[in-house]
Amino acid sequence: MADGEPVGAGETMLATRHWGLRDEDFVQRRPLRGQITKREVRAFSLYCLGLRPDSIVWDIGSGTGSISVEAGVIAHQGEVFAIERDEASLSLLHENVAKYGGGNVEVVAGTAPEVFAALPEPDSIFLGGSGGNLPDILEQCATRLRCEGRIVANFATLERTIETYQWFLKRGFLAEISMINAARSRPMPDGSVRLEALNPVFVVCAWRQGPSSEDCADE
Amino acid sequence: MADGEPVGAGETMLATRHWGLRDEDFVQRRPLRGQITKREVRAFSLYCLGLRPDSIVWDIGSGTGSISVEAGVIAHQGEVFAIERDEASLSLLHENVAKYGGGNVEVVAGTAPEVFAALPEPDSIFLGGSGGNLPDILEQCATRLRCEGRIVANFATLERTIETYQWFLKRGFLAEISMINAARSRPMPDGSVRLEALNPVFVVCAWRQGPSSEDCADE
Amino acid sequence: MADGEPVGAGETMLATRHWGLRDEDFVQRRPLRGQITKREVRAFSLYCLGLRPDSIVWDIGSGTGSISVEAGVIAHQGEVFAIERDEASLSLLHENVAKYGGGNVEVVAGTAPEVFAALPEPDSIFLGGSGGNLPDILEQCATRLRCEGRIVANFATLERTIETYQWFLKRGFLAEISMINAARSRPMPDGSVRLEALNPVFVVCAWRQGPSSEDCADE
Amino acid sequence: MADGEPVGAGETMLATRHWGLRDEDFVQRRPLRGQITKREVRAFSLYCLGLRPDSIVWDIGSGTGSISVEAGVIAHQGEVFAIERDEASLSLLHENVAKYGGGNVEVVAGTAPEVFAALPEPDSIFLGGSGGNLPDILEQCATRLRCEGRIVANFATLERTIETYQWFLKRGFLAEISMINAARSRPMPDGSVRLEALNPVFVVCAWRQGPSSEDCADE
Repeated sequence: MADGEPVGAGETMLATRHWGLRDEDFVQRRPLRGQITKREVRAFSLYCLGLRPDSIVWDIGSGTGSISVEAGVIAHQGEVFAIERDEASLSLLHENVAKYGGGNVEVVAGTAPEVFAALPEPDSIFLGGSGGNLPDILEQCATRLRCEGRIVANFATLERTIETYQWFLKRGFLAEISMINAARSRPMPDGSVRLEALNPVFVVCAWRQGPSSEDCADE
Repeated sequence: MADGEPVGAGETMLATRHWGLRDEDFVQRRPLRGQITKREVRAFSLYCLGLRPDSIVWDIGSGTGSISVEAGVIAHQGEVFAIERDEASLSLLHENVAKYGGGNVEVVAGTAPEVFAALPEPDSIFLGGSGGNLPDILEQCATRLRCEGRIVANFATLERTIETYQWFLKRGFLAEISMINAARSRPMPDGSVRLEALNPVFVVCAWRQGPSSEDCADE
Repeated sequence: MADGEPVGAGETMLATRHWGLRDEDFVQRRPLRGQITKREVRAFSLYCLGLRPDSIVWDIGSGTGSISVEAGVIAHQGEVFAIERDEASLSLLHENVAKYGGGNVEVVAGTAPEVFAALPEPDSIFLGGSGGNLPDILEQCATRLRCEGRIVANFATLERTIETYQWFLKRGFLAEISMINAARSRPMPDGSVRLEALNPVFVVCAWRQGPSSEDCADE
Repeated sequence: MADGEPVGAGETMLATRHWGLRDEDFVQRRPLRGQITKREVRAFSLYCLGLRPDSIVWDIGSGTGSISVEAGVIAHQGEVFAIERDEASLSLLHENVAKYGGGNVEVVAGTAPEVFAALPEPDSIFLGGSGGNLPDILEQCATRLRCEGRIVANFATLERTIETYQWFLKRGFLAEISMINAARSRPMPDGSVRLEALNPVFVVCAWRQGPSSEDCADE
């Protein structure tokens, strides 16, 4: 455990809440509320991470920490590193991790990929924001990822989506894109329901071909 | 444990696999392959179930069991009941539960809502198929659901979606619909990527207003 | 021509503009800007109207008049009736018709279905707003529509969509729904492009079975 | 008129049909049925072409000719060139133009951009297929397009979409992408309606900045 707490304490804390928090449960930046990964996309991104009870998870560009605290529930015997460099985001991230983390989520203040050196090899990597140096980050992620690991990246732009997807293929990974277009019910004054669209998000999921590979971080 | 296995055994089994199986991992009906809840929708449906480590889950119209075995990973100290009446589906369901279940998923052969009587009060209910008697099933689900429980239903038709959503509101639940339109990458011969659409699915999520209520199954 | 202008003048006016105005070309209500039928949906609705050069068109709940003025270009030898009851909308409607109409679009101030009595039998009906008395309006539309006519209705709510679709089937029409989910490019500061979603709209298109029918307005 | 017919004849022919043909109205290739531009996308693509009664239109990679014959109705005093190089497509194209064209649609058998030299400067260009030499075609289109002209291109792949959009920006055009996700009603045995998704299509619309420009084909 990153903060020295025994696993048991985290377990107990997690047992008191439901997995699957709503977007409004998280402390968010104002007026930029709305920048959180929407729950429809969060759910699918978590699903693609291929988590196990003892997974080591890197959440790069953690933001509000919504992916970290939910990943931490499934990887309840593992450890989640919520990496964030933005000062304003960090205070929200600490708040959300304190409120919803199960004792196995550690906030890492710093810039990717520099901070990776201090972290253990990950089983699952979530990439929610790249801040400009996407190729460096991807290269470091691929180098450090354990053999059966998974990398999941969320993008709003077509360019980053394609760039990342093609990067994975060239690097020998298998990869797949799912575009998620969700729309949520909004009740009208007469009781009927219309649908309110969320912006499309591209979820890129990547994993290595075959069960074993020389090019991975396990020994 | 429904089948008498100690929790520890299930835990061990689950530790060997990633959470987040792909659609093609499941044994499916032929030629009706494709009827499985798609992973983008499965992920979000699981997310809305509000699972806890010790949750009791009913999966009504379990089909291939994809929701059951994934819910069982999160509710690893709880129990999942995979309810199915169709003979052909039952054999696939047994196969998938044996392969991916962690010892806490029990197949229940029979018709809803009749089989509910023999089951413990649920914390989370997934409704993936109603076989015609939707109002009866909803009524029984609402009656038996624990106070802080959640009900999640998937529909393809507009009529069932609205009927169920409005039913929850009239019955005093809070409810929300998310329509999931997903599209997946398909590589072209020249290496570029086009998107292949999945059919829209309506996910209705319902829960009770307020933390306590007389109208629920806890004592 | 509704306003006494010879067709030739309208033709000339229309020849000076492109068909396919942008949403921002229309004078719109503030701050309700955004309520106009979006161009992706407008284009498809116009397509379904089955317009001919000499069509008589009713645009019920015309709003800004965007459907009317574009329908009038295709039905350049016909006549379009832009029906609107809301005072605030009417002034915008008059402005847009004066600016973009080709001399064959007449504004009809009044409530549907009452105003229908004064209008000639339509070949194409667009229903963009019902103001509450949807069944009455639909019944009158079906009664007055010419034998080979088409009715196109836009809805945001699931309830109205289904109600209208099923009404057409019961009344002996053929009908089809297309849900349009569109998203538009939005350039980012770095030059890349993300997608911004428009809310889903349901377009119900209806027409009579068979080329001839006793139940229609032609003699 | 390309084929020497007087405008009056085309007018008469067009007066006998509705604008807005259904996908199944067109003679299509088997078993590749389904490759036609779907009507929801066709409608919006036509809308973006900025057609006028006297427009000259190039439809590059015309396929079944569905864009050509519908554009020809709006540009009823203009001329549409349906350009296609594939032999199998050409016979279908001729059939569809004979059936639905109004005398102002000319089939041009040959490869783009080579065949452009023989054609008059276009007001509107639709690009539905590039067959590999996309940059050459775009360059020729931009050079030959009249000052107030529009270019509309449909793509399935993310790569072509971005490549074309960015090309237009670099070449000094304004451009916009609309992604169209449509889904159509499919009746179920019990009379209820589910939605069947069409694959997402990216529609890139481009036009020149400002009303006048040195870099265009008008004299």
